[in-house]
Amino acid sequence: MHKSILVVAAHPDDEALGCGGTIARLSQEGAAVHVAFLADGVTSRAGEAAADQGGLRARRAAAGNACEILGARTLYFGDFPDNRLDTVALLSLVQTIEELIAKFRPDVLLTHHAGDLNVDHRLIHQAAVTACRPQVGSTVRTLLAFEVPSSTEWQPPGSAPVFAPNWFIDISTSLSRKLAALDAYAVEMRAWPHPRSRQGVEHLARWRGATVGVDAAEAFMLARRLF
Amino acid sequence: MHKSILVVAAHPDDEALGCGGTIARLSQEGAAVHVAFLADGVTSRAGEAAADQGGLRARRAAAGNACEILGARTLYFGDFPDNRLDTVALLSLVQTIEELIAKFRPDVLLTHHAGDLNVDHRLIHQAAVTACRPQVGSTVRTLLAFEVPSSTEWQPPGSAPVFAPNWFIDISTSLSRKLAALDAYAVEMRAWPHPRSRQGVEHLARWRGATVGVDAAEAFMLARRLF
Amino acid sequence: MHKSILVVAAHPDDEALGCGGTIARLSQEGAAVHVAFLADGVTSRAGEAAADQGGLRARRAAAGNACEILGARTLYFGDFPDNRLDTVALLSLVQTIEELIAKFRPDVLLTHHAGDLNVDHRLIHQAAVTACRPQVGSTVRTLLAFEVPSSTEWQPPGSAPVFAPNWFIDISTSLSRKLAALDAYAVEMRAWPHPRSRQGVEHLARWRGATVGVDAAEAFMLARRLF
Amino acid sequence: MHKSILVVAAHPDDEALGCGGTIARLSQEGAAVHVAFLADGVTSRAGEAAADQGGLRARRAAAGNACEILGARTLYFGDFPDNRLDTVALLSLVQTIEELIAKFRPDVLLTHHAGDLNVDHRLIHQAAVTACRPQVGSTVRTLLAFEVPSSTEWQPPGSAPVFAPNWFIDISTSLSRKLAALDAYAVEMRAWPHPRSRQGVEHLARWRGATVGVDAAEAFMLARRLF
Amino acid sequence: MHKSILVVAAHPDDEALGCGGTIARLSQEGAAVHVAFLADGVTSRAGEAAADQGGLRARRAAAGNACEILGARTLYFGDFPDNRLDTVALLSLVQTIEELIAKFRPDVLLTHHAGDLNVDHRLIHQAAVTACRPQVGSTVRTLLAFEVPSSTEWQPPGSAPVFAPNWFIDISTSLSRKLAALDAYAVEMRAWPHPRSRQGVEHLARWRGATVGVDAAEAFMLARRLF
Amino acid sequence: MHKSILVVAAHPDDEALGCGGTIARLSQEGAAVHVAFLADGVTSRAGEAAADQGGLRARRAAAGNACEILGARTLYFGDFPDNRLDTVALLSLVQTIEELIAKFRPDVLLTHHAGDLNVDHRLIHQAAVTACRPQVGSTVRTLLAFEVPSSTEWQPPGSAPVFAPNWFIDISTSLSRKLAALDAYAVEMRAWPHPRSRQGVEHLARWRGATVGVDAAEAFMLARRLF
Repeated sequence: MHKSILVVAAHPDDEALGCGGTIARLSQEGAAVHVAFLADGVTSRAGEAAADQGGLRARRAAAGNACEILGARTLYFGDFPDNRLDTVALLSLVQTIEELIAKFRPDVLLTHHAGDLNVDHRLIHQAAVTACRPQVGSTVRTLLAFEVPSSTEWQPPGSAPVFAPNWFIDISTSLSRKLAALDAYAVEMRAWPHPRSRQGVEHLARWRGATVGVDAAEAFMLARRLF
Repeated sequence: MHKSILVVAAHPDDEALGCGGTIARLSQEGAAVHVAFLADGVTSRAGEAAADQGGLRARRAAAGNACEILGARTLYFGDFPDNRLDTVALLSLVQTIEELIAKFRPDVLLTHHAGDLNVDHRLIHQAAVTACRPQVGSTVRTLLAFEVPSSTEWQPPGSAPVFAPNWFIDISTSLSRKLAALDAYAVEMRAWPHPRSRQGVEHLARWRGATVGVDAAEAFMLARRLF
Repeated sequence: MHKSILVVAAHPDDEALGCGGTIARLSQEGAAVHVAFLADGVTSRAGEAAADQGGLRARRAAAGNACEILGARTLYFGDFPDNRLDTVALLSLVQTIEELIAKFRPDVLLTHHAGDLNVDHRLIHQAAVTACRPQVGSTVRTLLAFEVPSSTEWQPPGSAPVFAPNWFIDISTSLSRKLAALDAYAVEMRAWPHPRSRQGVEHLARWRGATVGVDAAEAFMLARRLF
Repeated sequence: MHKSILVVAAHPDDEALGCGGTIARLSQEGAAVHVAFLADGVTSRAGEAAADQGGLRARRAAAGNACEILGARTLYFGDFPDNRLDTVALLSLVQTIEELIAKFRPDVLLTHHAGDLNVDHRLIHQAAVTACRPQVGSTVRTLLAFEVPSSTEWQPPGSAPVFAPNWFIDISTSLSRKLAALDAYAVEMRAWPHPRSRQGVEHLARWRGATVGVDAAEAFMLARRLF
Repeated sequence: MHKSILVVAAHPDDEALGCGGTIARLSQEGAAVHVAFLADGVTSRAGEAAADQGGLRARRAAAGNACEILGARTLYFGDFPDNRLDTVALLSLVQTIEELIAKFRPDVLLTHHAGDLNVDHRLIHQAAVTACRPQVGSTVRTLLAFEVPSSTEWQPPGSAPVFAPNWFIDISTSLSRKLAALDAYAVEMRAWPHPRSRQGVEHLARWRGATVGVDAAEAFMLARRLF
Repeated sequence: MHKSILVVAAHPDDEALGCGGTIARLSQEGAAVHVAFLADGVTSRAGEAAADQGGLRARRAAAGNACEILGARTLYFGDFPDNRLDTVALLSLVQTIEELIAKFRPDVLLTHHAGDLNVDHRLIHQAAVTACRPQVGSTVRTLLAFEVPSSTEWQPPGSAPVFAPNWFIDISTSLSRKLAALDAYAVEMRAWPHPRSRQGVEHLARWRGATVGVDAAEAFMLARRLF
């Protein structure tokens, strides 16, 4: 149904954790899915002074493998500083996303939730909703926020907007590809009972599925839908 | 796109005020729209003891005219007591809506907002979301709450859930039919600057349109979307 | 640690769905757990005029079995009308809970969430928090609201207060007893992928566990804690 | 400044607890303050079948004394059932308040908060905001909700709308009359450290005062202000 | 009624969009209205390295014309970087506003809403409420947040605090001056159906008016009122 | 009961204002309480260029005296810039708190509220909840946010998350030590009727106490509790 979908994520693995099943399903159904990572996902661990070039290459290679499994058509890597997006003007993030929108002309944009524990996620949400201003000529008709295990559910209620999903996408036929994509990010994954473990991700997908009567689902909060 | 749409409203005129443009647009696009009014919309004004039969007939006739203008296929009139739905077990409302869903098998259900000033609106919202439990086999894929001028915007913030729309339906081509349907409810309409005046309704539709870059729109809050 | 715990639920099976693992764990750790069901859990299905006495007996027997598995010490059955608590004065519910508190002198009270889809759940929450007014001499030091699959997660955001848990109880060692208790309620349980299926309940428990780094957990919202 | 003020309270003593200092100050500044109690404040304690006529007379006498101390001009006693307003159609409450508004033509209306623990308070709030629909010709320009010790602060967050005040009235010069009015309700008052004790009321007034830099204040949530 | 009013806005045109009718009405009624723009409103479009001096002069000239039409007495131009206030310490904004308050000693302060889409608006709100701490000696008795078309209504619900107005100012007699002031900002205005078009602004003003039964209004959220 | 408690505050005096009674009570009951101040609490007043070394020493000496009175075992002084934490990457704050957690292995962590007026408080809350991710091996079982007079209650509702307490600690026996600790911060304290006056602090403690039926209490919002 959808022609062009843009996923705007902070770090490689967020796209698979947040909406990997949706990417896989919609790609298979014929949509062109473009995935953009704005932060490099490595720098902050290697210290401020020197980025770990090996780590960077490895993580980008993992992203390539994951997105190939999911069927994404395009990958984009920004180089904003990992876990330090609050040191960058929000406007820079907005302009980057605006350029991606101009290039891919998506009708659906998927991004982080406003209230995640991770500061990069929160700022990318802010930037994405700003870039998606519903002006005349805007291509984005559906703007959704996904949940990322080990960030969304870790934000205490009362500290930030709560993730309360109202949009559910059936991923019964694509959950296996989501999990395979996460295998590509083995370095980022953790052992059970961590929420960012293979089992943790599957339990969440099953619970979101049961919520709406299907075998597996990904859950989203709708930011805006134009019809 | 949508095959079958069920509108669950408290009183005749709520459907036109809340989603008349949407009914008209989607009917014209081929959807079968069914409109159900749960309260009789007259009793409370005529006193508790005796319903005003003439008023009841007149209001139902107006509803017939309005829905013909809008292109609705079916009308249903419940006889729950007007402005006194809080004297009825919520379960009775739920069961009535469940029967309507079983009959019409809608994929979209449109109903009142949870936080309207009018108590009938609030209770019908509660009943409708209960009737739309997303169980296996449920036909309803999209559940939306509309706003009704002179009820939704009159609820003070802090008193009930705020109407903060995230779903906008372009009614540029059907606003005129919405206004014509409201003309059929002349008895219920008020003179400007009342929000339930012809001009009030148009200003709101234009503002909701401008919000998303179209000439006129109706705004909704998404309760749940299954995809 | 806790000496006396009172669970105030609407219907038999809510206690097992909502906090069965907690009952089982704390019972084993020495607490005296008392479970009260305020609605009979049967009437509304059999019609208003005549309660289905056989169904009533069967459900109470199931509750007896379930609570024996969980280790609860006392069962109390109220006879408020099932799914029709909104036809009863809230004060009657409050007074019933006050009597239970006076009798069992609990230091912990577990009850439904304020925003469940089920109207009985919502009203019992209101009644319970009223009965637990933190006056001089009140025994209740901890007041928690649990989530019930097929009710809590089915309430759309924007319709009622969202369940956003901040209190997690590790039930890794008692999940099996929770599931066994639910087996006792076979009539109430559903097939996967319904949230009130054995698998649905387990996926939720695993996900709540992963959220806080344990094998299984039950999640609660704190209403009030006195220390 | 204000010409006519209507206080709509559930029970005698709520007016003094919630806005006694404001009544006293504005009365002295020349406003005509009218106080309406909708519930009789006695019935529920004496049982459903028979109202305690002696208790009723005593409580109305106390209200008379309190309001004389505060300088209120008019008292109105409704006879809706105490602590059982949820057994009455909300419309009946609305119509009663509408009649009071038509009679006194207030420019300011003060009433309970939407989220109090007491069910009568919550329903009177709903009825009052309904009666104050801002239609052409409405006299009410300012609609405020007050807090009542032992009800407002006893509602757990997450159960109902939170009282978060944004309107503060300096009662430095009238706190003594507020406390004297509460002395008239000796039967309703409790010993420290109950929030409905003389000291509890004063500590709250001092804290609300300190919040805005005055010796004592009453705090309100604004529902609506027309200017 | 009010003696001195301070408007704290991010960019020239925000004051006219947000509260131009109020400025015009209150100026005519004798208040001294002072308008402060904290960001230069131009830099970010011309790039970081070099501000467009011509654009800056033109926008300040437009502001001068607009505020003359509205009857504002004083204009103040800060030079914080446009659309990049998140690169400045909030404290700097606070101190600038504190100096303005010390200079003009306003009893009313009007500023942006906490939840606007524009990051400058959000930060100025934070700075303004900080500068208005209600300490002994503070002159500000009324603190209000206005809405700015193309920013306030473009923030998705769930992303930031929702604008839910509770304070309405009748601008029936000053709407024409508001629109004339916006004509002075022709460069900033857009064609219908953009919300920042002449028609968009008028539809909103009419709808806010109808909400409270007048021909046109501006709507605000009360932050704090001292009385 | 608790073995190790870590208080993470912005500035010296926040610990005494926010949870001084709790520190005193729990220290006396045998807990090891560690207090960390992340900002130096002086710089912003002396200008950006040069920190006032004398003021810094004096404030640290006051903190030493206060924490000795309260019975805290360890003091830690960070040197993040006072009232300018928004110029620092949040990650730096997170890492500092993580180091403190690694060192002291607290089971309880007390910190600022998410919605305080003071920007340093808000950012420390964000950093603390991030540092307390409930991973396998995390020692923190209870994460609470306290209120600080002259910051928490000064944030207007609608601007940030509201402080709505659900956790109350009886400080009847330790209020005198809290007040004595505040005497050590004489330079920071203000005269009545400022909320950060001795009397203001006591009125709040008494009101929080009355709320739960004790002579004095400190109130908290629970972020997360693992059991």
